[in-house]
Amino acid sequence: MTTVTILGATGSVGRSTVDVLAANRDRFRVAAVVGGSDAEALARIAREIGAGFAALADRSGGDALRDALAGTGIRSGAGAAAVLEAVDRPADIVMAAISGTAGLLPTHAALKSGRAVALANKESLVCAGEAFMRDAKALGASILPVDSEHNALQQALGAGRPEDVVSMTLTASGGPFRTATRERMAGATPAEACAHPTWAMGTKINIDSATLMNKGLELIEAHHLFGLMHDQLDVLVHPQSVVHGLVHWRDGGVTAGLAVPDMRIPIAHCLGLGARIPLSGNPLDLAAIGTLSFEPVDEGRFPCLGLARAALRDGGAMPTVLNAANEVAVAAFVAGEIGFLEIAAVVAEACERGASRKGKAPSSIEEALAIDHEVRQEMRDRRARATRFHSEPGRRMA
Amino acid sequence: MTTVTILGATGSVGRSTVDVLAANRDRFRVAAVVGGSDAEALARIAREIGAGFAALADRSGGDALRDALAGTGIRSGAGAAAVLEAVDRPADIVMAAISGTAGLLPTHAALKSGRAVALANKESLVCAGEAFMRDAKALGASILPVDSEHNALQQALGAGRPEDVVSMTLTASGGPFRTATRERMAGATPAEACAHPTWAMGTKINIDSATLMNKGLELIEAHHLFGLMHDQLDVLVHPQSVVHGLVHWRDGGVTAGLAVPDMRIPIAHCLGLGARIPLSGNPLDLAAIGTLSFEPVDEGRFPCLGLARAALRDGGAMPTVLNAANEVAVAAFVAGEIGFLEIAAVVAEACERGASRKGKAPSSIEEALAIDHEVRQEMRDRRARATRFHSEPGRRMA
Repeated sequence: MTTVTILGATGSVGRSTVDVLAANRDRFRVAAVVGGSDAEALARIAREIGAGFAALADRSGGDALRDALAGTGIRSGAGAAAVLEAVDRPADIVMAAISGTAGLLPTHAALKSGRAVALANKESLVCAGEAFMRDAKALGASILPVDSEHNALQQALGAGRPEDVVSMTLTASGGPFRTATRERMAGATPAEACAHPTWAMGTKINIDSATLMNKGLELIEAHHLFGLMHDQLDVLVHPQSVVHGLVHWRDGGVTAGLAVPDMRIPIAHCLGLGARIPLSGNPLDLAAIGTLSFEPVDEGRFPCLGLARAALRDGGAMPTVLNAANEVAVAAFVAGEIGFLEIAAVVAEACERGASRKGKAPSSIEEALAIDHEVRQEMRDRRARATRFHSEPGRRMA
Repeated sequence: MTTVTILGATGSVGRSTVDVLAANRDRFRVAAVVGGSDAEALARIAREIGAGFAALADRSGGDALRDALAGTGIRSGAGAAAVLEAVDRPADIVMAAISGTAGLLPTHAALKSGRAVALANKESLVCAGEAFMRDAKALGASILPVDSEHNALQQALGAGRPEDVVSMTLTASGGPFRTATRERMAGATPAEACAHPTWAMGTKINIDSATLMNKGLELIEAHHLFGLMHDQLDVLVHPQSVVHGLVHWRDGGVTAGLAVPDMRIPIAHCLGLGARIPLSGNPLDLAAIGTLSFEPVDEGRFPCLGLARAALRDGGAMPTVLNAANEVAVAAFVAGEIGFLEIAAVVAEACERGASRKGKAPSSIEEALAIDHEVRQEMRDRRARATRFHSEPGRRMA
């Protein structure tokens, strides 16, 4: 039996994790589940997979959670201390699927000797990659990538020795605006930007997929996970989302990880700890799919990818700045305050302003969070000044 | 330094092996090279890569070989004993690239404890797979597949545990008649059948690629190499010849081996013994290729694949019968004695006649060779009778 704890159990990756665990009750025991604010949903999950403990990050939902679990024998708690109590419970694997910077501290707390951390929280690597990987190594935790791209790359790496890798390619579906003109993108609504062609995901990541910032953040993750430099990491647009990642070896051979777009597959790979867990569902049928297509990214239409590449190349805390600026910009787009194309403009300006942060990577999660906080505060201040001086409220931020 | 011996040095795979070795002189020493009958070509190769010994299978070419190597310090010999002397020389890897049943005995003789045999001779597995793999295991030799498909599968297997493999897919370019009607194929000449769209190879394998018998023989090889049953092995037509093989895992994940169609790549993978040898040339550029397409095999137009599948399913010595019948039929097609579509008909009839051989696989290479000889003899006898009774000489064999 493998013992699992799920951080972010009520989110998209969390629910897929629950699906895999529920279908393999003979292999897994669930130590704890952690949710954000939806007490009802968390209680339902805790009951479904018989978790030992359920923790809600939002302290105000504690009573509702306790009531919903009454009579089940499942203990519960709410607030930051309860979340850390959940993380501390003995577990072989922690699925770290809290999204955003909110996931940084609990994910870091999950690093313990001998423990596997299945990492779905991008920000742990994007905002604090050096510190996170250093601490994982020092503590003896292993990091298993959950993203379909990195998971595919991790699997493909089995075909050779790390020192023989020349480069890696991550694929991108291209999002809903793959073939759109800049004019079309300029007028795009949040609903249009969220209409992802191949994956069902949350709003923030959907919009990041539409701008290709998501792929940029994934390049930064790949750098930390696999130790490759920025010029060894490449992106290809692949609309079918069947080939997720490719490892290029120095003899010209290439190993690729493929699967239908279903997050349960990389999640099951992580949970299997080297073994493969049988999954029902759609096996990959290439004859039925017929055609796999690949095209270079048009960085003129998708400048966010170039911004992320620049942040990776510049190093230091630039990825932290990039990520904070992108979160603010995406929120402003969702709120109708800026247009779709302005997301990149806002991020670019924040990165220019933050260029002095190239020199030094955050040495701890706390330092990364402080930089994240400063960048957001700066952006808010600038925006407040801009709206104070201009008569038109809120259409422009940068 | 790794010491290499090349059997079949003057053939297509042999010459590609020489290319890889010549470009990596710091890593490899060449113990011996073996050729068939072309003394000049063998001498040129032996000099180019500084072989210690050169052996020609054709005894009559011995003098020419010795003269061509005069003053080089490279010893030489000719005939079966010289070939076995070459095989016996100490070597870490033997590239077994003699084609056809002529390769069976020297390839088997190459099996020695601790030695790696890079296997390009299909017939060792097709005609005598049980005996060959049993002896390799008993002797402690490791078998490295050279065929691009099996090499890709071998690499892809690194992504998981053998017990988690559900199935494997080998790709086929589809050959020159991929989109041809049966009418068109009925009138095909040997030259047309040899016009392979993606690989440069010898005549026999080109025609086997046109009938898809080659892919059928590869299914049989895959069975012996990877221990999968006939219903776990599949073929997909993939005209670009970029994806060579796919391993399907039981969690729905798929690992694929890709490369541009260049035999030096799988050869280098074998010679590297786990490490990757840098190869100059064309790296895979999926954005430039643009589209990879996949389609099921139309077994109505390509009945040879079904015949090979049946031989694999029936087991015993049926693959030995199939292979012998196919060699005779291809030779008859090349000689203008039968039409392209009759290749399958001739093989099918030989397999029907040989159905009593299902029960028992050849227990040795010698037994496989005896069966091979009997099948050919039977076919020759039937053909002689047929031409004696019919006025039209040679247009039909079966």
